[in-house]
Amino acid sequence: MNAPFFEPAPDLAEVTADLLARLRERTPLVHCITNGVVQGFTANALLALGAAPAMVDITGEAGVFARVADALLINLGTPAPEHRDAMREAAAGARAAGTPWVLDPVAIGTLPIRTALAHELLAQRPTAVRGNASEVRALAGHGSGGRGTDSADAPAAALPSAAALARQHGAVIAISGPADLVHTTDATVRVLGGDPLLTRVTGGGCALGAVVAALLAVRGEHAPATAVAAAHALYGLAATAAARTAAGPGSFAAALLDALARLTPENARRDARFGRADSSALATGVPA
Amino acid sequence: MNAPFFEPAPDLAEVTADLLARLRERTPLVHCITNGVVQGFTANALLALGAAPAMVDITGEAGVFARVADALLINLGTPAPEHRDAMREAAAGARAAGTPWVLDPVAIGTLPIRTALAHELLAQRPTAVRGNASEVRALAGHGSGGRGTDSADAPAAALPSAAALARQHGAVIAISGPADLVHTTDATVRVLGGDPLLTRVTGGGCALGAVVAALLAVRGEHAPATAVAAAHALYGLAATAAARTAAGPGSFAAALLDALARLTPENARRDARFGRADSSALATGVPA
Amino acid sequence: MNAPFFEPAPDLAEVTADLLARLRERTPLVHCITNGVVQGFTANALLALGAAPAMVDITGEAGVFARVADALLINLGTPAPEHRDAMREAAAGARAAGTPWVLDPVAIGTLPIRTALAHELLAQRPTAVRGNASEVRALAGHGSGGRGTDSADAPAAALPSAAALARQHGAVIAISGPADLVHTTDATVRVLGGDPLLTRVTGGGCALGAVVAALLAVRGEHAPATAVAAAHALYGLAATAAARTAAGPGSFAAALLDALARLTPENARRDARFGRADSSALATGVPA
Repeated sequence: MNAPFFEPAPDLAEVTADLLARLRERTPLVHCITNGVVQGFTANALLALGAAPAMVDITGEAGVFARVADALLINLGTPAPEHRDAMREAAAGARAAGTPWVLDPVAIGTLPIRTALAHELLAQRPTAVRGNASEVRALAGHGSGGRGTDSADAPAAALPSAAALARQHGAVIAISGPADLVHTTDATVRVLGGDPLLTRVTGGGCALGAVVAALLAVRGEHAPATAVAAAHALYGLAATAAARTAAGPGSFAAALLDALARLTPENARRDARFGRADSSALATGVPA
Repeated sequence: MNAPFFEPAPDLAEVTADLLARLRERTPLVHCITNGVVQGFTANALLALGAAPAMVDITGEAGVFARVADALLINLGTPAPEHRDAMREAAAGARAAGTPWVLDPVAIGTLPIRTALAHELLAQRPTAVRGNASEVRALAGHGSGGRGTDSADAPAAALPSAAALARQHGAVIAISGPADLVHTTDATVRVLGGDPLLTRVTGGGCALGAVVAALLAVRGEHAPATAVAAAHALYGLAATAAARTAAGPGSFAAALLDALARLTPENARRDARFGRADSSALATGVPA
Repeated sequence: MNAPFFEPAPDLAEVTADLLARLRERTPLVHCITNGVVQGFTANALLALGAAPAMVDITGEAGVFARVADALLINLGTPAPEHRDAMREAAAGARAAGTPWVLDPVAIGTLPIRTALAHELLAQRPTAVRGNASEVRALAGHGSGGRGTDSADAPAAALPSAAALARQHGAVIAISGPADLVHTTDATVRVLGGDPLLTRVTGGGCALGAVVAALLAVRGEHAPATAVAAAHALYGLAATAAARTAAGPGSFAAALLDALARLTPENARRDARFGRADSSALATGVPA
């Protein structure tokens, strides 16, 4: 039971399939400034899906590259001073050139440097923000963040924060959790799929941020929120497939990359599942 | 033939089983400042075992985080200037807050910056030091280190150095090798298990340092040395299991993560093996 | 049909087999200053093959270590300021001590910092340069580089650039592509083998640079170009073997490490394939 949303798109699964086909055809160049823990896994996830990653993370190059890349990811996981300046350059470059970009505010809240930086980068108007519920809440100034990279909150608890962020900054807000929520000023959609093993692999969430950027790069006539939802659906389908053969988190990580490479538009058309989270969720904090 | 040691613990394998159960229940938050080569593998090893890693490695955050984390690992593998300052902050924060912490003095000896830093960090009283024999000897001022990250010495050859370090700094000293040695001022225990493939995977030793930190986080009423020995035993059991199915070092790395996730207290109770290394070893350099 | 080349070596496959045997016997210490995305995979590739990696990438240590290591790799993928200075130190140290060294000019061309650095490092006379066609062309001042890390040119299109670089700097120039080309002032050889999956794994090319360094470390009486060609042949054989069992890029990466570990001199003797690229290629840009 797929739900229409975000734009007059009668079938989200159909659009997801089309966007995957487009990505495979165009191999979008995705500029990533991400944390040192997950750089390799993130690049591998993009390569597996069919995009071309480039980790250009120094000042003097990041701004130049954000202007020519097809999309940009900024992930705040291990923000050394040089990388913070590179992020500033890249975000400004992306904004100036109209490059779509994704902010992943890893572990903000208690940690002061990255929290201030996340707020500063919001001014460069990211196309989308992807985080867990605690990170989204902290970004909106609600709550004090999670426990390291773990969320202390359920996704729905962050919907009021997502609404405030979407209204104020014009960004699509994606909240990762057992079911992911993608929120824009018009609507909220739940994306079903994924697997708990994603939380047992470092970069399970961070690589999704890069996949969101890759889908934004090929969205064309579609709304940004549609591309964000499609990215979550594709990543979730790959995770579900990978979990079927995995013997644990180590074999799951390799299987996830294999599954991203094997995804087809037909898979997406047949298996992607979206649910509506009606507007009462914004008031109650509980999605329908 | 399990041997009593360190504290009136009649059966070390039994304590190891209990500590694993406790770790799974509490998901300790392990703060890691480690080298860029092994950050991903280290985080994955902690996640697989059941701990929550957080790689907070910048100044302005590392000290704050070391105060709230359940344990801290400092690994000197690729100590950029920013990371060196973050290590200083974190070690001071851990000491102030009573957070147990582990020092892994990777490749000290010939390399001057990390060698000086290792000696400086000792003043912050690490709970445990984990390294190979050449690193332990160099830390005690004996010998000039190994060959890169490889030890030039057998574990037993580092026992006099371990004794000097334990006496002077109050730390548990763990020496990795074909059989690991865990030394404290009272006793030395050999931990059996493991597999030579651990030396063919980068981070094979570094991730063990993080696992030591995770076990220290849940040691409760037990002596630090007991938790250190338990960590070595659990890691060794996982390595032994992984080697059974691996076709080489690439599949071994994934299998090791799967095996860490599948370890059970029952495994530990049944299969963990400890041996006594009597005090004559300190004089002769040869464990019993 | 193996072709004689570079030196009076009647059978390149035979020399490749001998160099692998020598590498296994000596475990050369390979100093790597490489990008953060592929540090782990590069170290694992060296360990799997039988070399000892050491990622010493800070100033104050890099120059010291380059003097004692058996070979050095400098890869420009994510050149933070500290790493740029460490590269300068290491290259100068390697030159002074006669340590063979490899330059991998990742993504030079459009990106200004690394492009200037690559030209500066050439003055320290690398033993070999390894890159894709666009990188080699950009290093010679021809063309503006590729698209991130992807080549915009076929290998043969870079032969005139390789010839100019070899003449001017005395380096062996290796151009990666569907068939790799190894060029020196005397001759150009094509190395057959490999698999397209290498382009779907991050570090597929970067780790080859480290393998080139490892083979240079044990070349003994052989010409540098012979060792460079042998490295490409061995890596290609492992990739071909890994692709046979891989279900996608994730399982391929692990299988490649397993295959590097399982390579034997007998494999190399039987399966390594080299082809001649005659001198007309330099004029026409098309290898024979």
